[in-house]
Amino acid sequence: MKTNFDCVTCIVRQTLDALRQVTSDEAVIERILRSTLSTAAGIDYSMSPAEIGTILHRKIREETGNQDPYLEIKNKANKAARGLLPFLRRMVEDSPNPFATAVKYAIAGNVFDFALFTQKDKDVFRKSLGEVHTKELDPFKLYDLRSKIFAAKSILLIGDNAGEVVFDRLLLEQFPSTKIYYAVKSKPAINDVLRADAIFAGIDQYAEIISNGNDAAGTVLAQCSPEFMDVFCNVDLVIAKGQGNYETLNNCDREIFFLTQIKCNTVAHDLQGAIGDWVVAQSVPRLN
Amino acid sequence: MKTNFDCVTCIVRQTLDALRQVTSDEAVIERILRSTLSTAAGIDYSMSPAEIGTILHRKIREETGNQDPYLEIKNKANKAARGLLPFLRRMVEDSPNPFATAVKYAIAGNVFDFALFTQKDKDVFRKSLGEVHTKELDPFKLYDLRSKIFAAKSILLIGDNAGEVVFDRLLLEQFPSTKIYYAVKSKPAINDVLRADAIFAGIDQYAEIISNGNDAAGTVLAQCSPEFMDVFCNVDLVIAKGQGNYETLNNCDREIFFLTQIKCNTVAHDLQGAIGDWVVAQSVPRLN
Repeated sequence: MKTNFDCVTCIVRQTLDALRQVTSDEAVIERILRSTLSTAAGIDYSMSPAEIGTILHRKIREETGNQDPYLEIKNKANKAARGLLPFLRRMVEDSPNPFATAVKYAIAGNVFDFALFTQKDKDVFRKSLGEVHTKELDPFKLYDLRSKIFAAKSILLIGDNAGEVVFDRLLLEQFPSTKIYYAVKSKPAINDVLRADAIFAGIDQYAEIISNGNDAAGTVLAQCSPEFMDVFCNVDLVIAKGQGNYETLNNCDREIFFLTQIKCNTVAHDLQGAIGDWVVAQSVPRLN
Repeated sequence: MKTNFDCVTCIVRQTLDALRQVTSDEAVIERILRSTLSTAAGIDYSMSPAEIGTILHRKIREETGNQDPYLEIKNKANKAARGLLPFLRRMVEDSPNPFATAVKYAIAGNVFDFALFTQKDKDVFRKSLGEVHTKELDPFKLYDLRSKIFAAKSILLIGDNAGEVVFDRLLLEQFPSTKIYYAVKSKPAINDVLRADAIFAGIDQYAEIISNGNDAAGTVLAQCSPEFMDVFCNVDLVIAKGQGNYETLNNCDREIFFLTQIKCNTVAHDLQGAIGDWVVAQSVPRLN
């Protein structure tokens, strides 16, 4: 997905929000904000928003000298989500359609964002969980996804955020016993899920955890490792979580199912939905 | 009011919104957005948000070669507001407290913004007018304002936007017959009220229209003409409309009443209110 001008101003604002999570030193914030604005003035807007965000977040890590600025936030998110796991599992199992409910929880978990766990954000998190009972997913897409999951001999689930990974486990629990891969980032990328988060969530009981070889937001195939690309190209089914993966993968050469909340107008426009929608989307492969 | 970092990212976004009102040429928008980001990277953040906005909007005028890019929007706002004048006047006159109702309409009119008159914005405008019946103003501040208006031998009302100026006329109709000045910008500044807008609204029937000598958003005293400063310093009472005037005048050396809607968190924090509040605020003079 190409960056539009609204994405540029939004990414600059997000970078400021992120900076505030990392430091309260006003001089440091000002220096990095100025550097962010300057970078945004010169950057290539033909990249996806996630790619531009990656460049700016790498700068935060470089300029603060903190290689994993969101570690504490990620740990809090993981713990909060894992504490809910037994309750959520019962909600899934007791529901009329456990597969659909698990998909919904996997999308509910996509509310996790780097700014989480202020009191306001806890309220947003609770609200997202409650919406499992009211949000509608496209029943045809859901049926199609389920059919393909049960027909596939190998599946790759590309994770998104820490915390959210626990909700992905609920979905994996509904998968048939086939070969499953769960992709994480190799190095810290905002609050994206790393191997340690996936293991904390118990993903390794259901899937082989693979690293994608880089620290970009979303999945920038050109930066991914040969090992990841081998899995990505050869599995029967790829499912990707979150807007960042949608932005970077929606035009690629293979069919992918996306599970995400729509969080901005640009993605809403692209998916012909509205901010706040929960979607199961399917990319149309360019070459297949 | 000093600019904080949120103001910087907000002003950049506003500049993009404004640019889109002026041109649909994507190449021009991209060029000026990049130039805006670059300027925002290097600008002095000790200025008020209105002062920074002024610099960026001047760039839009320079770089598009259009000296009054919002002329059409201003004319639409003026006409829409003037068409409502007889109805609104009756609402004021038939209300239990015409002075308070006129103050509320003057604040309701502060909803006019450069982006107005898309369908969405028409809805916002109608909502703002309806809120006259529900919004509460501080009764003590309102009483104090009324007392000072009726005791003053000379009053300066500093206008804010085109369109809004018609609502200011409703307020002027409640003033006693004393010497009244109404201040406008000398040259186009976003959609700020100019002499022609004030005359269109019939302000000249109630007040002497004076220009402030510049094209800055808000009222930057250092850039105002000696004629304006003479009135500003010597009238018994100054009333200023809108956030831009609040941002630039709230720390100045004389008492000022501000009538505004709170439109952002920074001003909300400063005024100890919330976004959406309608306020009659009173500056505490530094030297008096």
